[in-house]
Amino acid sequence: MSGDNKKLYITNGHVVSMNPKREIFTNGTVCVENGVIRYVGESSGAPSSEGAERVDAYGGLIIPGLINTHTHISMSVFRTLADDMADRLKRYLFPLEARFVTQDLVYWAALHTLHEMIRGGTSTFADMYYFEEQVAEAAEQAGMRAVLGETVVNFPAPDAPEPYGGLGYFKSFARRFQGHPLITPCLAPHAPYTLDDEHLAQIASMADEFDVPVMSHLAEMDFEVSALAEKYGETPVQYYHRLGLLTPRLIAAHCIHVTPEDIDLLSDADCGIAHNPIANMKAGKGTSPVPEFLAKQLRVGLGTDGPMSGNTMDMMHVTSAAAKVHKMAGRDRTLVPASTAFELATIGGARALHMEDSIGSLEPGKRADIAIVSLDAPHMFPVFDPYAVLVYCAGPQDVRDLFVDGRRLLRDYSPLTIDPLEIRKQLGNIVEGVRTGLKSL
Amino acid sequence: MSGDNKKLYITNGHVVSMNPKREIFTNGTVCVENGVIRYVGESSGAPSSEGAERVDAYGGLIIPGLINTHTHISMSVFRTLADDMADRLKRYLFPLEARFVTQDLVYWAALHTLHEMIRGGTSTFADMYYFEEQVAEAAEQAGMRAVLGETVVNFPAPDAPEPYGGLGYFKSFARRFQGHPLITPCLAPHAPYTLDDEHLAQIASMADEFDVPVMSHLAEMDFEVSALAEKYGETPVQYYHRLGLLTPRLIAAHCIHVTPEDIDLLSDADCGIAHNPIANMKAGKGTSPVPEFLAKQLRVGLGTDGPMSGNTMDMMHVTSAAAKVHKMAGRDRTLVPASTAFELATIGGARALHMEDSIGSLEPGKRADIAIVSLDAPHMFPVFDPYAVLVYCAGPQDVRDLFVDGRRLLRDYSPLTIDPLEIRKQLGNIVEGVRTGLKSL
Repeated sequence: MSGDNKKLYITNGHVVSMNPKREIFTNGTVCVENGVIRYVGESSGAPSSEGAERVDAYGGLIIPGLINTHTHISMSVFRTLADDMADRLKRYLFPLEARFVTQDLVYWAALHTLHEMIRGGTSTFADMYYFEEQVAEAAEQAGMRAVLGETVVNFPAPDAPEPYGGLGYFKSFARRFQGHPLITPCLAPHAPYTLDDEHLAQIASMADEFDVPVMSHLAEMDFEVSALAEKYGETPVQYYHRLGLLTPRLIAAHCIHVTPEDIDLLSDADCGIAHNPIANMKAGKGTSPVPEFLAKQLRVGLGTDGPMSGNTMDMMHVTSAAAKVHKMAGRDRTLVPASTAFELATIGGARALHMEDSIGSLEPGKRADIAIVSLDAPHMFPVFDPYAVLVYCAGPQDVRDLFVDGRRLLRDYSPLTIDPLEIRKQLGNIVEGVRTGLKSL
Repeated sequence: MSGDNKKLYITNGHVVSMNPKREIFTNGTVCVENGVIRYVGESSGAPSSEGAERVDAYGGLIIPGLINTHTHISMSVFRTLADDMADRLKRYLFPLEARFVTQDLVYWAALHTLHEMIRGGTSTFADMYYFEEQVAEAAEQAGMRAVLGETVVNFPAPDAPEPYGGLGYFKSFARRFQGHPLITPCLAPHAPYTLDDEHLAQIASMADEFDVPVMSHLAEMDFEVSALAEKYGETPVQYYHRLGLLTPRLIAAHCIHVTPEDIDLLSDADCGIAHNPIANMKAGKGTSPVPEFLAKQLRVGLGTDGPMSGNTMDMMHVTSAAAKVHKMAGRDRTLVPASTAFELATIGGARALHMEDSIGSLEPGKRADIAIVSLDAPHMFPVFDPYAVLVYCAGPQDVRDLFVDGRRLLRDYSPLTIDPLEIRKQLGNIVEGVRTGLKSL
């Protein structure tokens, strides 16, 4: 299920390594053995390709697989429902999920979205939803690396009839998947406004006990900020800090409404942050102060958010948006330049997940999560600056090949580990059920 | 050179008509004869397909061709140069153009960008640059509809050694192309800060004399606003108004720094506005008040801006950005909903160019500018709302077919009127010259 026990010789491309020196090898080769990168550099210095499968990049860019640090992949089944509706989370999304989300829906919608992610060069994703065990099964089948958070909320959830039932679900999920080479189970308290103090504190302890990450929406909503200010005189970040959740385990999604003091707290606690520029723009929620995070060397990665929020899994355009929204907000075109945005999509995402020792860059000793980006399409030519072409020009359709843990998931634009027609058929049936059910909602 | 003298029967798709009632025909057909749309509606009511070429939309969306109201297509040769550089227009772009822009460069770079536009579903574009006659030749070869503005500036330009030499160039350009079925020559005073009062007023008269549109950058730059405030106590819009340029002929690009009074002036004069949300974000220049324009029923279309500004010709993501930047700026997710954004990309663009009687929607009597968008890719499924899938999910890679004036420019993702390999070869040589020349710049 993990990397194949064989050698790969990926060559004839420009290697954008994202190593600490940010080296680019213009006539480069990457060698892989048993799922681990063994060589990254100019082709002239590469070891023998004997016994290795040769992969031709056809003059394209060889890059680290993209890392999506925040999503809810099974929500693809609801894509294009209620996009521009005000106050939709409580008015629309929660009721929708209560009505329709089943184990079967989560599994097939996850595979559908994994198909999209594979085609777009994503090698690792961090997800939070219900029936997360089905997301894990789908990810395992697809061969993707994943950090998967079982959602915990203070109301009955699709996979747990009692409030906070996700805690029980998590335990069996963790027992099954902990130690998996690609899948990291974790706890996902939904948000400060959907759990009480006691359960949030309990999750902090459970995370220690199980030694797992914690992912949560944090400082995303106006009403979240005002409610905590009124109740405790605290910001959302201060609130999580008091309850013991601000630790290196935390992957905090959004972090829009944060003060300079909050940024110091997040920095001191070494938390990871998942920045979702497209979803945040579309929601009109405000702009996360990413330039300030970066000035403090915070661990910041990028996320698409779920397909009802960001609509697609297109990490290329999320990266592009990360470069642009801060220029727009700060009225300064030099903010978050292309090279910085591409860092956020790769090594930054790895840091946000505290996985930078194994993924996020092309370096000997790291796991072989690698994408090949074609430069054939007209919008990808010329290339005076490879970071600019990746961030300002590329789209998911330019991804030709993808490897995760040394296993090939995409070959010449075609997915290898999933069955697109079967997925579309199964999801099609589920969508028809939703369509019919919506009429009576 | 214009529409073929034959019948088309485009069927098996969802027709998003953008007609005044905004009708969508879920099992729809569009019939075309001699480049003119003859029928738009449910397939059940369509006339006989006898003698017509049958075009299968394979269950995709049949939409009006997209309209790009502001670009400089030949700048694709400089793509990814100096993207994140401050104050780059005068420090970098003008010297770059003075050094490298030739007739040959403009022609081949135009064809390269036309290739990209055709693949992305654009059927009409409004361009301003130097050697605009070569852009016209390229557009004519490609079969695209175009409004082409010869640039006029107060310094020596690549195609005119004397300041304001563009005026002379325009005259012969107009003589050659006026009356062309697809190409509308026009005058393009660069901006309030690159021409003097006398020449701007002269251009207003010349536009009347030649009966042509005028396109110009307007209210785009901070320094433009402050200089006019200091010199005349006027806003850029007031300045153009005083000089006689605020007329229905004007297509004003950007209009970022406008007051409520300016909006009234633009509205009273019935000007067209080209909104470039991606380029404006990336430049950190501020946000054009599009919701306020729309409240006054102003003629607003969308543009990519040039490939050194917006980087690509991807009108799908420009449309998506138009839906999102105003939500972000106004902190309101209901602003510029998907249906409104898609209007801007189609009938809105036609209105901005004052061409809404002939293009911008699928209606009997209009010219047959039609794109087919595939729903096959995973990011395009499911479709609960066709506008949302077009605006929030689609990319240029989803465009399967394109017709302009009834002529097929793209068939099943392959361009028919241009030679991609020859273009890449020719532009490759020019790019190598630029690369070498840059070392001594």
